[in-house]
Amino acid sequence: MEKQMEKYVIGLDYGTLSARAVLVGVHSGEVISESVYTYPHGILSTLPGTEEELPADYALQEIDDYVEAMYQTIREAVTQSGCNAENIIGVGIDATSSTFLPLADNGEPLCKTRQFRTNPHAHLKLWKHHGAQEEADRITELANKRKENFMMRCGGRVNAEWMLPKLMETAQKAPDLYEATDNFIEVSDYLVYLLTGETTRCMCHAGYKLLWNEEDGYPSEDFLWALHPPLVTLKEKLKGRQVQVGECVGGLTEEAASRLGLKAGTAVAASLIDAHVAVPSAGIDGPDKALMILGTSCCMLLCSQKLSYVQGISGCVKDAVLPGLYAYEAGQSAVGDLFDWFVRNCVPGSYEKEASELGISIHELLSGKASRLAPGESGLVALDWWNGNRSCLADSKLSGMILGLTLRTKPEEIYRALLEATAFGMRAIFEEFGKGGIEAKELYACGGIVHKNPFMMQLYADILGKTIFTSSTEQGSAFGASVYAAVAAGVEAGGYASINEAARAMGKTGEKKYEPVCANVEAYHRLYKEYKLLHDYFGTGGNEVMHRMKD
Amino acid sequence: MEKQMEKYVIGLDYGTLSARAVLVGVHSGEVISESVYTYPHGILSTLPGTEEELPADYALQEIDDYVEAMYQTIREAVTQSGCNAENIIGVGIDATSSTFLPLADNGEPLCKTRQFRTNPHAHLKLWKHHGAQEEADRITELANKRKENFMMRCGGRVNAEWMLPKLMETAQKAPDLYEATDNFIEVSDYLVYLLTGETTRCMCHAGYKLLWNEEDGYPSEDFLWALHPPLVTLKEKLKGRQVQVGECVGGLTEEAASRLGLKAGTAVAASLIDAHVAVPSAGIDGPDKALMILGTSCCMLLCSQKLSYVQGISGCVKDAVLPGLYAYEAGQSAVGDLFDWFVRNCVPGSYEKEASELGISIHELLSGKASRLAPGESGLVALDWWNGNRSCLADSKLSGMILGLTLRTKPEEIYRALLEATAFGMRAIFEEFGKGGIEAKELYACGGIVHKNPFMMQLYADILGKTIFTSSTEQGSAFGASVYAAVAAGVEAGGYASINEAARAMGKTGEKKYEPVCANVEAYHRLYKEYKLLHDYFGTGGNEVMHRMKD
Repeated sequence: MEKQMEKYVIGLDYGTLSARAVLVGVHSGEVISESVYTYPHGILSTLPGTEEELPADYALQEIDDYVEAMYQTIREAVTQSGCNAENIIGVGIDATSSTFLPLADNGEPLCKTRQFRTNPHAHLKLWKHHGAQEEADRITELANKRKENFMMRCGGRVNAEWMLPKLMETAQKAPDLYEATDNFIEVSDYLVYLLTGETTRCMCHAGYKLLWNEEDGYPSEDFLWALHPPLVTLKEKLKGRQVQVGECVGGLTEEAASRLGLKAGTAVAASLIDAHVAVPSAGIDGPDKALMILGTSCCMLLCSQKLSYVQGISGCVKDAVLPGLYAYEAGQSAVGDLFDWFVRNCVPGSYEKEASELGISIHELLSGKASRLAPGESGLVALDWWNGNRSCLADSKLSGMILGLTLRTKPEEIYRALLEATAFGMRAIFEEFGKGGIEAKELYACGGIVHKNPFMMQLYADILGKTIFTSSTEQGSAFGASVYAAVAAGVEAGGYASINEAARAMGKTGEKKYEPVCANVEAYHRLYKEYKLLHDYFGTGGNEVMHRMKD
Repeated sequence: MEKQMEKYVIGLDYGTLSARAVLVGVHSGEVISESVYTYPHGILSTLPGTEEELPADYALQEIDDYVEAMYQTIREAVTQSGCNAENIIGVGIDATSSTFLPLADNGEPLCKTRQFRTNPHAHLKLWKHHGAQEEADRITELANKRKENFMMRCGGRVNAEWMLPKLMETAQKAPDLYEATDNFIEVSDYLVYLLTGETTRCMCHAGYKLLWNEEDGYPSEDFLWALHPPLVTLKEKLKGRQVQVGECVGGLTEEAASRLGLKAGTAVAASLIDAHVAVPSAGIDGPDKALMILGTSCCMLLCSQKLSYVQGISGCVKDAVLPGLYAYEAGQSAVGDLFDWFVRNCVPGSYEKEASELGISIHELLSGKASRLAPGESGLVALDWWNGNRSCLADSKLSGMILGLTLRTKPEEIYRALLEATAFGMRAIFEEFGKGGIEAKELYACGGIVHKNPFMMQLYADILGKTIFTSSTEQGSAFGASVYAAVAAGVEAGGYASINEAARAMGKTGEKKYEPVCANVEAYHRLYKEYKLLHDYFGTGGNEVMHRMKD
């Protein structure tokens, strides 16, 4: 009966290797059904119809996988839910970013054309395509030299994973393709286009990945000319109505509606970035609250009323998450990846056996043993840069370090030191924000590791010295996309008037929270000083041994 | 038949937990027989007849174990050899040092008396008894303040394992025992006394462990008074004729000879230090040749015609190894121990399985994998201070460090970095000697690890930039003690006129030697610079984080 009264929205999230759709109750916030689709082609090692291996730093994908994922997962989630299409009022789509493709003027992907199908740059360039490092360095160098305003918002350094360096890569390495492109489009904007027929450009992507901001717009033609003359025409190739997150782009076309099992005209939200949609889904509805998305790496988002320069962040875009607020993004390149590296490479067989006998994971075994130690007891301190440092040193050539090892050091002590190091790394990020006058007054955490490792969350609370609220949603970004769908649908259709309101109603702050333990906070305050001293010595030029060892 | 022509000598070596006697042909250098005795009481956890646990840093032993070891192993070696006692011309005894005990004026150990048997300071204090750290620090402080000459020979710091701090500990903590003691005697001198009835004091021990030297003698009464007034009587409690290594102390008494199955009057050599006797046994017969004794830790001995100040060495004593030369000792606190720590704590089950399937040790597996890497390929550099640094920083509060870790780092890369780090540590020691104008022109290595790990020896040759000759003796110090026995026996009895001559004749330089590979030498020259920069930063006050983390 309740299902008749309730309205529903669909969130669709595109990860690196699979997509997931959820159907969610607008008022209950309950996930009614979900469907996952793994991309059959994964990340391409060769282009279709060719045999030549792509370079190791390339990460290209098959656009058909994305399109098929959309139709299949939404249709399945709708069918499974048993909901009447009448009551499904909105669709929201998020994806990794910058993950984009070039379109011809008829709206067709250029990778589908005979002319360009064997050109790697015509294909979907995934966020982690790393072919444009030289271009990124060149942009950073030139922009800093010219003191370009936009550098203030991106932490002083342009990342090779963003759209501008990747476009420059295309313009340099495939000039004919660049010429032939009518529109370089984020894949989530492209999928929104397939559903609605509307070509839009969500300014959330543009802000973080194309150095656009609401005051200055895109980098100037003057700058682009100095960078690489053909880029002077770039803006003509960035087509689409500019839209903001939570905005309704349009309704489902008849054709799309029929393929999805939904009603034509159902609201489709402006496209979203996967990490950013997690903010309202954790129940964050206002400024000065930070969300840590803890997975293989860590992405931290912090909304503030204030625009400020913060060194080494991943970007700062107004309205990108919550209306009227600047959304700052920063991150750490290895968190879960680091702990997994340790478990795979450094844990003796006797521990594997013990975990197996107890019927627990090695992570659980190590966490259990490590939890019986006092802060600082092991005498170890580590720098968490196993995959370089993303924020705030923004230096991929930094590497990991452990200090304080003795003949009595046990694996659980090293494991704990690694957990502590990632928390210290996060504290260093918050300190950098503090220098810009931006404070995270409340901390939230989401991601699988949050629920799997309560010991780690307690360490984070102790080291960051603040209560950490956890998000209880297990569908992460897909759920977040549904929150935006409810806003795009609007009040009249049964949705919400604002993102803040939707976040309060649908967002899932979990019951589990972690309070800092006073004695630990003090002990870690002292240990953090040691971390920071080493962080600054190795990270800011005191000894560039990490760079030299990587070369 | 040959056995009738040949003369024989016996070497007896006292290690930490067992003793070993060998019977060796004087001219062939061939080991004819050997016998090992493990001390039944090991290291005492309680005193005999008491139940109270001794402090964790105490290391006391049962003198009866040492006495029984002597009679049993020598008798057994003689019996096994089938040699006629007529042809056995000398006995040499070495032991760990400073390992000593207090005697009453009748020559009885005070631990055997009713009055003192429950006093821990009356018992055999083993070299690794660590109860006198405060005393050692006090001696260092006072001696440096007073600019005492003897500090020049001991590297500027007094070690708690030496005899003087341990005597001061007795004088302070057991003043009545100190008063009652007639003679504080090294255990090897005591055993020589049991065999010959002669009370002697080998100046090799006194030089390294009692700050004696041939110019100034023992520390002055003035200094000892300032240190702790009762110590002013110390010299009266250091009885015995002063003798040098290779000297004949006297002949076996009738009683001792009959218990051992030897001839009364057989020459007994002055007592020896276990590490030092390895020098002639490796075939070293002159100055500027360094011997690295590679085991759980590393002891390095270098003989030179020159007296010079070298920071942080373990001591410098004239005539202590070869006549007329200054014997410098330096060391590293963790070598084999460090690699064993890694294998026990940091090697995943899959590697254990692979080694087991191949029927090789994990060390062999790791060395094999590590040997396929190029120098510097892993990007790792480590500081080898898992058990502090003995030379030349002489700082037990330093700890181990690994830098350059990434998500792709493999166990064999870390293993190799640890091997390299110990070799870099050795290179730093040689550099310190170089500052004092003392150069090791030839390098020798002995110890079990030398034969077990040829990959490591090649690394040492590449990093030290010199050919390394190996010693082929497998009985180490026991064999070395037999070389000195052949000198004590003298030419007339069928032995040798000098240690140099005996070393040339009996010493065992192995056929296996390791030549530095030119390209590796250059690569390691660069890597060593990184090691040294970190060594100096963490070891000489740039950042005292290691001290703070240990506190």
